Amino acid sequence: MQYTGSNKPVVKLLLEQCFIHGIKQVVIAPGSRNAPLIISFANHPGFTCYSIPDERSAGFYALGMARQLNEPVAVVCTSGTAVLNLAPALTEAYYQEIPVIAITADRPPEWIDQEDGQTIRQEFIFQNHIRSSVSLPSGLQDCDLMNARAMLDQALVKAHGYPKGPVHINVPFHEPLYETQSWSFEVQTGVFEPQIKSNYAEVKSEVLQQVSLFQKILIIVGVKLPNKEIEQWLNRLADNKKFVVLAPASANIRGANILNLAEALALSLNANQDLSLKPDVLISFGGPVVSKATKQWLRSIKPFIHFDVDENPEQVNTYESLSLKITGNPILVLHDLLATPEKNMEYQKLWQVLNQKVVDKQTEFNTTCPWSDYSIYQIFFDWLTFPVDLHLANSTPVRYAELFNKHPMINYFGNRGTSGIDGSTSTAAGAALVSGKATWLLTGDIAFVYDSNAFWNRHLPDNLKVIVINNQGGNIFRLIPGPDSTEQLESFFETRQTAQIEKLCQAFQVNYLSANNKDELIQGLEQLKNSSTCTILEVFTDATISAGQFKKLYQQYRSL
Amino acid sequence: MQYTGSNKPVVKLLLEQCFIHGIKQVVIAPGSRNAPLIISFANHPGFTCYSIPDERSAGFYALGMARQLNEPVAVVCTSGTAVLNLAPALTEAYYQEIPVIAITADRPPEWIDQEDGQTIRQEFIFQNHIRSSVSLPSGLQDCDLMNARAMLDQALVKAHGYPKGPVHINVPFHEPLYETQSWSFEVQTGVFEPQIKSNYAEVKSEVLQQVSLFQKILIIVGVKLPNKEIEQWLNRLADNKKFVVLAPASANIRGANILNLAEALALSLNANQDLSLKPDVLISFGGPVVSKATKQWLRSIKPFIHFDVDENPEQVNTYESLSLKITGNPILVLHDLLATPEKNMEYQKLWQVLNQKVVDKQTEFNTTCPWSDYSIYQIFFDWLTFPVDLHLANSTPVRYAELFNKHPMINYFGNRGTSGIDGSTSTAAGAALVSGKATWLLTGDIAFVYDSNAFWNRHLPDNLKVIVINNQGGNIFRLIPGPDSTEQLESFFETRQTAQIEKLCQAFQVNYLSANNKDELIQGLEQLKNSSTCTILEVFTDATISAGQFKKLYQQYRSL
Repeated sequence: MQYTGSNKPVVKLLLEQCFIHGIKQVVIAPGSRNAPLIISFANHPGFTCYSIPDERSAGFYALGMARQLNEPVAVVCTSGTAVLNLAPALTEAYYQEIPVIAITADRPPEWIDQEDGQTIRQEFIFQNHIRSSVSLPSGLQDCDLMNARAMLDQALVKAHGYPKGPVHINVPFHEPLYETQSWSFEVQTGVFEPQIKSNYAEVKSEVLQQVSLFQKILIIVGVKLPNKEIEQWLNRLADNKKFVVLAPASANIRGANILNLAEALALSLNANQDLSLKPDVLISFGGPVVSKATKQWLRSIKPFIHFDVDENPEQVNTYESLSLKITGNPILVLHDLLATPEKNMEYQKLWQVLNQKVVDKQTEFNTTCPWSDYSIYQIFFDWLTFPVDLHLANSTPVRYAELFNKHPMINYFGNRGTSGIDGSTSTAAGAALVSGKATWLLTGDIAFVYDSNAFWNRHLPDNLKVIVINNQGGNIFRLIPGPDSTEQLESFFETRQTAQIEKLCQAFQVNYLSANNKDELIQGLEQLKNSSTCTILEVFTDATISAGQFKKLYQQYRSL
Repeated sequence: MQYTGSNKPVVKLLLEQCFIHGIKQVVIAPGSRNAPLIISFANHPGFTCYSIPDERSAGFYALGMARQLNEPVAVVCTSGTAVLNLAPALTEAYYQEIPVIAITADRPPEWIDQEDGQTIRQEFIFQNHIRSSVSLPSGLQDCDLMNARAMLDQALVKAHGYPKGPVHINVPFHEPLYETQSWSFEVQTGVFEPQIKSNYAEVKSEVLQQVSLFQKILIIVGVKLPNKEIEQWLNRLADNKKFVVLAPASANIRGANILNLAEALALSLNANQDLSLKPDVLISFGGPVVSKATKQWLRSIKPFIHFDVDENPEQVNTYESLSLKITGNPILVLHDLLATPEKNMEYQKLWQVLNQKVVDKQTEFNTTCPWSDYSIYQIFFDWLTFPVDLHLANSTPVRYAELFNKHPMINYFGNRGTSGIDGSTSTAAGAALVSGKATWLLTGDIAFVYDSNAFWNRHLPDNLKVIVINNQGGNIFRLIPGPDSTEQLESFFETRQTAQIEKLCQAFQVNYLSANNKDELIQGLEQLKNSSTCTILEVFTDATISAGQFKKLYQQYRSL
């Protein structure tokens, strides 16, 4: 197969390596220094390209696509501060272990710090949060090309490794930038089955022995992509072995004996100091746990034994009680746990009793709660009867969503690697672009306006539907204790904001709806569902009432 | 004096050090981990605070303020990717040598990489482009406080040094974050007169001897803040000593014998290969030169001797001909040059002849040029009769503006440290906020939409007036050779964009005007001048006509 690309051999080589390493989607932010990359990627039959002008947004588009596809996605930008605008998405990718490949054009190294335009120190610019960084040689000698091939291969393989993660490829270009030639391209793909450096085989007997020895086993699951296999194993452990499985909605685990309401349960546990639910053995896996109360509870009671299971060999001690880090595939561990003896009912029963109290309290609360942020989630979850990928922006939507049991129709997603608000919309849009599935985003007014450039491109996926809860400000500061009692609440914490989201939608020509009460919300949800293009539903609530209801619910859980 | 601040002694200490080091303005991006900083800065009588929600914009606000005031300005943000969003402005500050102090709240160090929210590796996160980085101890022992005081002092003094520049202070906080106490505050300020490590005294006699020996002396001035003293010395050198002074409009130097039209002159010189204008001695100072043709010309002809003068001791060899880097104050060098013998008229005359040809050609062109990007600059400069600080966005506006002689009423500003488009509006707004002077921004549609969050705050200065030239895309790619001949021009280079700027203005409640022709433009300019609030004037042009006219003018200069 032939394609017309840049005449620079290093670019041809880079594309070959990208192709071999499984990159198929390329997000491009416009520029001039990156012209050899743009021309080549856009013409090469192996890549699908998307143009996203704001680099901060472009980075999060790539993140959303890579997470959705579970394959590396490249984001290409020009030299200078453009590069720095990718840093938020790459850092989120680092902590979520998502293979986003930043390919940054650079000026030739001899012009750095020579007062030339758009020339900064791009080598190792992401070094705090990157799996691998290389800067390709800018010459054209054969030995350089061989060197470049090896560098690229070594860097890109890190994107697939354990842990997966972002990789930075910096490519300095001399002028001319726009000359092309015809290149031949042979379809070949690599096989990347990195050897996981597991210690599970070594520690397996000890782990199973400890789990067999004790009665109170608690498995806690962090933020996790939907995984039917893990869900099945966990259900068997809960049903057959009477393990307690605590999996907040964002862990994407559901089942008759799976406990989803971690935050509510932990609020009660923290308040009543009941130690009967303290586990003998805590087994954790998945990403971070959102629920602050759960982390507080586990840190305060300190389980007797804590095994943390992850393919990433780096040791993480979230609950200050780590006994042993098991490096390995959680599925293997769950499978083997099924061979341990069944526990007596007692411990699971205690949890179920408390869980029922939580459920009853919430049911009661639901009947009295007036129109507020909380009621939007309640109404939305009640209304939803078809499958959606639901993206939750930081920080309020993800916290509210976890106050409800995992919805059977929902796959939950959120940027909880670093929990920034900067790319929630772009991430959801990127995911929608490549999934083709019904993709909904629940966000707040601050996160929405912050990332409004997510709508500034010609690729907006029709399957993206956005619910923006507008309480006119960073209402989270009314929910958490502290700022609500500060005189600076309105001027410096809340971002009490008056940006008009309807006008932003008009500016970017995105379909817009609004709702001010339950009937309008349900009508709006129906319209979102039936809309054939990307559509925004802005839902207005009152900040004071919303904060009041949230606090009331929390107080009720604390006094269970 | 008393104020109510955070009860954390390290915050009290930080504020004292900021005050001593001359920080008076503080840009705050909302958050929770930075609560101790927010509460304290907002209550302290020595600081004026501004709330800017998007950290990328907040960083550029601080940059614009610091450049305007010529004093350090702090920008405060919360932990996580918020910090990374400051990187573009800090990098621009690094290359412009502007003292922006990033004060970033952090989680306690023991929680980094423990899967806790908004916790990333903030230490040394800006390390490629920062004058100094410190991370304060998070404990509260007396020795830690003494240590913190020394660290802060050592870091902040770098902001004032040679070269000035950005400094990063990372402050980890344990909870609780919102507790306050009353602190006493005594007004004291430091005296910072850093000893410049000059070599000028050592090389002075050699430099003056060389300049005396030769006839063809060319002084070239880069992007420079307005400086009347430098302007006077340069005029005397041109008038009395017959030196040739080449100072593009953005150098802010004007005079009867000062040549401003560097780009046009160099286009002709590059084309006709006339070596009679080659200097024997080139003396350069100021920041980067925007004109690409000038850089090309000097790099190709290579002056016999090249002295570069700067207080920054780092050696920069923009023209690949550096003979000697003079570390010292350019004013001292200019002063001493006046003691060298007068040159014969010949060399200056040659330049003036060419300059007259350029002026005549432009005058002729002006009469024929139809409505286009170029004509907006022409009309605006003709119309302007009162003093303004004019900010020029990257990349097109700064290039167009330099095609005209320096306007007597204009002080020119631009982010030419790294030439990014990411913060042009926020920088101008920050400058307007603290100057109180008529501050105008000339920008393009891409840079405007990219940084539209510049308008997302409650501090918009009434004295900011923005002219947005909307040619529906990154027209610069039609101006530079290369992309205009590429089939990807429209899809991946230009960002052919359809965002509606009027709606963006409505979204942020900013006054909006538009113009489609000369009469409407002049009417709009009058309205901008007379408007009592921040106002945007969008001027529509045709991309193809605009690019055609620009190329025509360039072709005419090349054939002079």
